Amino acid sequence: MSASLIILAAGQGTRMQSDLPKVLHRVGHAPLLAHAMQAGSALEPARIVVVAGHGAEEVEKAVAEIDETAQVVIQDDRLGTGHAVLQARAALQGAEGDAIVLYGDTPFIRPETLQAMQEARARHAVVVLGFEPADPARYGRLFMDGDSLEAIIEYKDATAAQRAIPLCNSGVICADAAQLFALLDDVTNDNAAGEYYLTDIVAIARARGLSCGVVICDEAETLGVNSRADLAGAEAAFQARKRSEALENGVTLTAPETVHFAWDTWIGRDAIIEPYVVFGPGVTVETGAEIRAFSHLEGCHVSQGAQVGPYARLRPGAELANNAKVGNFVEIKNAEIAEGAKVNHLSYIGDAFVGEAANIGAGTITCNYDGVFKHRTEIGARAFIGSNTMLVAPVTVGAEALTASGSVITENVPDGALAVARGRQSNKPGLARKLMDRLRAAKAAKQEKH
Amino acid sequence: MSASLIILAAGQGTRMQSDLPKVLHRVGHAPLLAHAMQAGSALEPARIVVVAGHGAEEVEKAVAEIDETAQVVIQDDRLGTGHAVLQARAALQGAEGDAIVLYGDTPFIRPETLQAMQEARARHAVVVLGFEPADPARYGRLFMDGDSLEAIIEYKDATAAQRAIPLCNSGVICADAAQLFALLDDVTNDNAAGEYYLTDIVAIARARGLSCGVVICDEAETLGVNSRADLAGAEAAFQARKRSEALENGVTLTAPETVHFAWDTWIGRDAIIEPYVVFGPGVTVETGAEIRAFSHLEGCHVSQGAQVGPYARLRPGAELANNAKVGNFVEIKNAEIAEGAKVNHLSYIGDAFVGEAANIGAGTITCNYDGVFKHRTEIGARAFIGSNTMLVAPVTVGAEALTASGSVITENVPDGALAVARGRQSNKPGLARKLMDRLRAAKAAKQEKH
Amino acid sequence: MSASLIILAAGQGTRMQSDLPKVLHRVGHAPLLAHAMQAGSALEPARIVVVAGHGAEEVEKAVAEIDETAQVVIQDDRLGTGHAVLQARAALQGAEGDAIVLYGDTPFIRPETLQAMQEARARHAVVVLGFEPADPARYGRLFMDGDSLEAIIEYKDATAAQRAIPLCNSGVICADAAQLFALLDDVTNDNAAGEYYLTDIVAIARARGLSCGVVICDEAETLGVNSRADLAGAEAAFQARKRSEALENGVTLTAPETVHFAWDTWIGRDAIIEPYVVFGPGVTVETGAEIRAFSHLEGCHVSQGAQVGPYARLRPGAELANNAKVGNFVEIKNAEIAEGAKVNHLSYIGDAFVGEAANIGAGTITCNYDGVFKHRTEIGARAFIGSNTMLVAPVTVGAEALTASGSVITENVPDGALAVARGRQSNKPGLARKLMDRLRAAKAAKQEKH
Repeated sequence: MSASLIILAAGQGTRMQSDLPKVLHRVGHAPLLAHAMQAGSALEPARIVVVAGHGAEEVEKAVAEIDETAQVVIQDDRLGTGHAVLQARAALQGAEGDAIVLYGDTPFIRPETLQAMQEARARHAVVVLGFEPADPARYGRLFMDGDSLEAIIEYKDATAAQRAIPLCNSGVICADAAQLFALLDDVTNDNAAGEYYLTDIVAIARARGLSCGVVICDEAETLGVNSRADLAGAEAAFQARKRSEALENGVTLTAPETVHFAWDTWIGRDAIIEPYVVFGPGVTVETGAEIRAFSHLEGCHVSQGAQVGPYARLRPGAELANNAKVGNFVEIKNAEIAEGAKVNHLSYIGDAFVGEAANIGAGTITCNYDGVFKHRTEIGARAFIGSNTMLVAPVTVGAEALTASGSVITENVPDGALAVARGRQSNKPGLARKLMDRLRAAKAAKQEKH
Repeated sequence: MSASLIILAAGQGTRMQSDLPKVLHRVGHAPLLAHAMQAGSALEPARIVVVAGHGAEEVEKAVAEIDETAQVVIQDDRLGTGHAVLQARAALQGAEGDAIVLYGDTPFIRPETLQAMQEARARHAVVVLGFEPADPARYGRLFMDGDSLEAIIEYKDATAAQRAIPLCNSGVICADAAQLFALLDDVTNDNAAGEYYLTDIVAIARARGLSCGVVICDEAETLGVNSRADLAGAEAAFQARKRSEALENGVTLTAPETVHFAWDTWIGRDAIIEPYVVFGPGVTVETGAEIRAFSHLEGCHVSQGAQVGPYARLRPGAELANNAKVGNFVEIKNAEIAEGAKVNHLSYIGDAFVGEAANIGAGTITCNYDGVFKHRTEIGARAFIGSNTMLVAPVTVGAEALTASGSVITENVPDGALAVARGRQSNKPGLARKLMDRLRAAKAAKQEKH
Repeated sequence: MSASLIILAAGQGTRMQSDLPKVLHRVGHAPLLAHAMQAGSALEPARIVVVAGHGAEEVEKAVAEIDETAQVVIQDDRLGTGHAVLQARAALQGAEGDAIVLYGDTPFIRPETLQAMQEARARHAVVVLGFEPADPARYGRLFMDGDSLEAIIEYKDATAAQRAIPLCNSGVICADAAQLFALLDDVTNDNAAGEYYLTDIVAIARARGLSCGVVICDEAETLGVNSRADLAGAEAAFQARKRSEALENGVTLTAPETVHFAWDTWIGRDAIIEPYVVFGPGVTVETGAEIRAFSHLEGCHVSQGAQVGPYARLRPGAELANNAKVGNFVEIKNAEIAEGAKVNHLSYIGDAFVGEAANIGAGTITCNYDGVFKHRTEIGARAFIGSNTMLVAPVTVGAEALTASGSVITENVPDGALAVARGRQSNKPGLARKLMDRLRAAKAAKQEKH
């Protein structure tokens, strides 16, 4: 039976020094909360409940974008983790099976770990996720008796002997949903902080004769984000993992440490990624494509054998077919570059189709915006767009057509036609020297005055 | 009473392999010497004396730029640190209070450390700055008797027992100015190197019954620069500190290790800085502004909610108002971009004013230079500059005016007017095919010949 | 007498997950194989034999490019290192002197190490290159008796005592060429893998009463590449070495870790390299030149005092004379920029000569390609090319000539002449407002419909 998820995301994150709710800060271009939800989604949860508090409106909006089946409940007063989980009670009314409590600021729990926790539920009423940190000092300790978890002891309440226990509490807990709430009913706020602690349910369960158990994960999985430095550390950990995965999949990364991935970047085998490439969300790069240095890609697709950069910017909707080429200081937005077509230098191609084997000259611009509307440009196969051509959309240039360098194309160009739209050259002998002499004389006169 | 500073900056720095005097090499875009002077300036020193030697002329010029109240004295012969300090005697004639000896190649002494040294002067005639390095081998050792510094022992003169002392000499010394010179009068060059050592004044002071003491600082503060590798290490240390500060202040740095700050960079809370951003000197970025990847900023101001980059270059005098936008492959120099105005693609805007909510099309260039003079361009509010417009300065485009794409604007455009300056399009049917066929035939003929 | 080299380059490199033969993957823009061959080339080898197998055709082509005197022999079946070396027998028929066996996937052996091996041959019939790795677990061990190598023991065959030996086998071997093959004749494939091991020759030599010896090198020299992660590690090691060398030679690298060198990059003393600079092969930068951030250089020469970038792309054949300046978003290909000439912004200069002190305006493009042929542009000394000038090649602009901004230059411009080729401006009062009002009304109508 599939579990439900309760994701605690109400904290303010004061140490982040930010107006943005902590769980909406991003790692790999996705909010921390999305990472936490994604780990849980591998369990195909029956219901997902996010407990929001600080910045609840923003969190609600983000949750809707991540998973529209998730419910958001509001924790108006922050009275502890036990209180937070209780806010999910109504949303989980009638939910059968387990509930797993996760944290919106803990992005790296692996699906395999959650599965292990569910499996351990066959033996225990309550399963807690533990870890053995390199420096355990500040964490609560898991006090075991053989395979049985007897109690979670907060560090400040622990004896010296208990502090020597290496096994610590991550806060992630799994239990039957109905029983979880039944146990929480007995939790009190009779402690120094006056808060209701989720961890107290272990002692309560043991008092009721219920078995509690532990699943142990890597410390890296339990990394929580409490400060900007933590966030940067989480980003670095995420990037390290993506870089290793890419190398293992046969991607050539000359300098892996200089390539930045998004959570959903996909790169094919034997693709070459030079140093200093930044991937925003929604990018796929096929086998054998080459992304050269200083390129920036978002929401785009690069097909086999295509070449991008250096200094290429592919924006959402850029679609490069096989062997297409996009060169330096070129921006492509919402445009298809067909097979073998080239946009090599200093161009802006937006809201356009560039036909097969067409050649787009340096400095070409699709003038797609009239101040109010956006319009499309269509360029035919094997067309040759002369340097610095302005294509005033909506406009069509036919197959095998040619535009003269420096032309402003406002009307359609038929297949095979040459379009010219520019002034005629006239040379004025000696005039350059005369003009420059005059300017220099003016400067000299000016300097004399001062 | 405020102290005076004596900053030793005469060394050649042979190991730097450079024609530039060592103290003028830069960390965070400021000369090493400026860092040393800045640490001391927090004490509001009565006088500042820089002792120059190698490359004295260049050093003198740099000092004038850093602090015009500072005096430069020349040490013609380099006969040791004691001799160097003595060159400052005339410049400090009649100076009351303390003198602190600093080093122009030691950029990281903290103001708090110098204040602690001044306070320790209440108890000691001479106060030396000590540190406990991880690897103390080559440093002089501070031989203490309780709170009292008895002698500074050079490593080569130290016994095995003395070499076991972890406390080392940084060379920074504080004493009453008049007394400092009086002590130096007794220093001799009776040693292997034939040099006058500043450190000898401790033994001389003790011999005269004067008390000497020590203030201890972090090893990182005493980092001196002797080679290019040291300089790179100092730069890295500087950047690490600036990055941490930014994170603590609530700046979002996706990949802090890829952002390079200058000594005076200021970034507001919740500003977003993407990977690969380089700040030159004189940059301020306000709250909530966004600097995207691969951007390069110098001497500019970015206001709230403004967006910069990717691939934007803001040069000195660029001033972006609230919600202004500067996009990819755009250079802005000495120009104000008013509230909500946009320069999104492939443009050069220099010596200009761009009015509120104006839209500057791709490929726009302010032609500000005629080969001798620079001229200004003024663009009115809500103006719409068509793609690839050349604005030949001096020129004014009125509010709500429009320039046609590809126009060369040489005359002022009134408010609300449309300016057109370009050729008319003519299509020549079939001519493109004919021309290309001819070229291909020529190529074939050529290849046949070979 | 000079040695011959046998370089084993037949392996498939399955763990690379690549269609490219392993030895052709690159470090510092040169194939691994080229690095291995270069180390050996310092010995001025009599003959070089590369044993190819997997991807032999591609390897053969690469070898021809690296060293046309090298022979390639094919190992059709991969039956072990001994078998691989035997494929070189015919190619080394009659070769006098030593043969050294190297590995195409081991790029960092130093020439000095190979020289030491040759010298050790005065004392031993067979000389093996050993190293003492930090983690020796999986390597074969070198079992010594004093100065004499008695046997190479594979890890899996070693006793616990033998596994405690810190000295490991790199696989590099030196022996008299004729004797090497004579020893190999006795090697059998009587082992678990059914392969012929080169290492077996040590035991055979000892059995024949021949002396074997060892030369020890740094572990870093023996770094082999078996996976993409290894390759990235090799690249990082290569870059670290090049960066250190540059610093030692007096180059200013603000952030050395962000500068990427090719194997043959040469940078002069007091040149300044800002962060994020990528060097492809064939670049030389002279003393005092400055390469600013985000620049990308390949196959080009930058002379004294020249300034490049930020965001400059110099492609093969770019030649910058003293004090030339190439600025942001500029691409230079196969073009000479003469002394003091400037190409400061947003330009493409290809197949061109730009004369002394000429000034190329922003947005200038040499239209060098007509779809079939490439043509040249010549610009005279002190010419002033107005912004956004299209130079339709073949074309010549004379000395001190001037082109008006936005001109398309299709005919030669004489010395001192002014060339104009553009439309004349006309202002249409009020038309901009009318047009925009109409567009906005259309949008409003459209939105009403929906």
